[in-house]
Amino acid sequence: MNSPEEVVDFIYNGHQRFLPHLSIDCVIFGYHDQQLKILLIRYHDQEHWSLPGGYVERQEGLTAAAHRILSEKTQLTNLYLQQFYTFGDSPTRLNRIEIQDNHNKVYAKANVAIDEEHWLSKRTLSVGYYALVDYHEVSVTPEFLVVDYAWVDVNAVPSLQYDHNEIIDKALLTLRSQLYQQSVGYNLLPEKFTLSEIQALYEAILGKPFDRRNFRKKMVALGVIRQLDERRKIGPHRSPYLYDFNLENASKLQEAGGVIF
Amino acid sequence: MNSPEEVVDFIYNGHQRFLPHLSIDCVIFGYHDQQLKILLIRYHDQEHWSLPGGYVERQEGLTAAAHRILSEKTQLTNLYLQQFYTFGDSPTRLNRIEIQDNHNKVYAKANVAIDEEHWLSKRTLSVGYYALVDYHEVSVTPEFLVVDYAWVDVNAVPSLQYDHNEIIDKALLTLRSQLYQQSVGYNLLPEKFTLSEIQALYEAILGKPFDRRNFRKKMVALGVIRQLDERRKIGPHRSPYLYDFNLENASKLQEAGGVIF
Repeated sequence: MNSPEEVVDFIYNGHQRFLPHLSIDCVIFGYHDQQLKILLIRYHDQEHWSLPGGYVERQEGLTAAAHRILSEKTQLTNLYLQQFYTFGDSPTRLNRIEIQDNHNKVYAKANVAIDEEHWLSKRTLSVGYYALVDYHEVSVTPEFLVVDYAWVDVNAVPSLQYDHNEIIDKALLTLRSQLYQQSVGYNLLPEKFTLSEIQALYEAILGKPFDRRNFRKKMVALGVIRQLDERRKIGPHRSPYLYDFNLENASKLQEAGGVIF
Repeated sequence: MNSPEEVVDFIYNGHQRFLPHLSIDCVIFGYHDQQLKILLIRYHDQEHWSLPGGYVERQEGLTAAAHRILSEKTQLTNLYLQQFYTFGDSPTRLNRIEIQDNHNKVYAKANVAIDEEHWLSKRTLSVGYYALVDYHEVSVTPEFLVVDYAWVDVNAVPSLQYDHNEIIDKALLTLRSQLYQQSVGYNLLPEKFTLSEIQALYEAILGKPFDRRNFRKKMVALGVIRQLDERRKIGPHRSPYLYDFNLENASKLQEAGGVIF
């Protein structure tokens, strides 16, 4: 929605286009230079920041909806969005008065309001999707009702709208638990990378440092990466070996529970 | 629903009690004696088997709903149900005439029918939950509309209702991918078990045999199990060592992506 007219149309006719009671929230992890961040947005007249989210069209596939919503809210496209959990336990999503009040502050920007019986005031479960991008490589353009956005350090996330902190915690847990089973970082590192580069990425995601020698040994033994017969010259006396992802092994690893005998 | 009267009440008043457009489906894996099976049910006058499933109450937590639904459909309780994916991409869930027709064959058992505009005829996304039980330890009591149930070998699942085959495939993939990160089998094996017992369980879940020596070495190295200073006497010349699960390590493993450096 990029104009007051579109917001007004959404408020009056949205129930025909969208399913009630179900939304999608996107946790976009951004990595650059050893730092892991999360994309947050702030809607008009809202104290708390939020995750980019939206509603599913009545005839639209759920995965397609996730891509459309992220694109509408931020102009980010072509991300590898992965569904990780559906949130429907939180009591913060049951208080209609609070939900109505939050919506109405936002929609005030377009001079329109909803009542307690409006479909947007009702209980809404949310399907979480996450993606991992290089935040220096993407540009975010928020839509009309979004007044601000920020890439916030994963260790300094403020108190967010509804259960969005819980959604981020679960996304991070999922990202970590799948770290060795998927070629996480395939889009974040150059095709051929040094051990220091991938170690910095893994340390940022897992939030702790590793012993360099152990890290190399385990990563190669697990079959996540392969050492190449090639070096990168980064100084007169420094030319570390290059590595690449063992992509074939990654899918085998996932099917086998992360361990190949 | 255990009587025609309850079904009639559900058809006429269910929209007040339940959220529209959202259901839960349960994949109950049953393990016993080296065999992995799945619990299927067949509704009245339905050619295809289904997973046990149902709808979420308007004010009910999603996790609580999963437990209630499984208990109502099968009388199974106290299972460790884990959410694994929400299904909303399949076009088989968009054809209202087909959905209405299927429902009406089932509800004919209670002499009641729905039309194309009834909330049950509309598009319904489904949240998948799975659990793992010893199928010799549990007893299933299907509700009124369910005419049959079966524990079907995981390799011989027939063509099911809607996208239920896809739901089972995803559940199995999830179970496999989490196998080394969670103490899967904690409820299936005795507290102290032999290597053969846990190897048989892992082989059944992953659908392939392992070399015994490699299996032991990796399982101990990963910290999934610990060898005890204790043996079980199973014959004059056979008294294998006993093992137990390293539960502390299991949660650490999950947080660390399955690998501890």
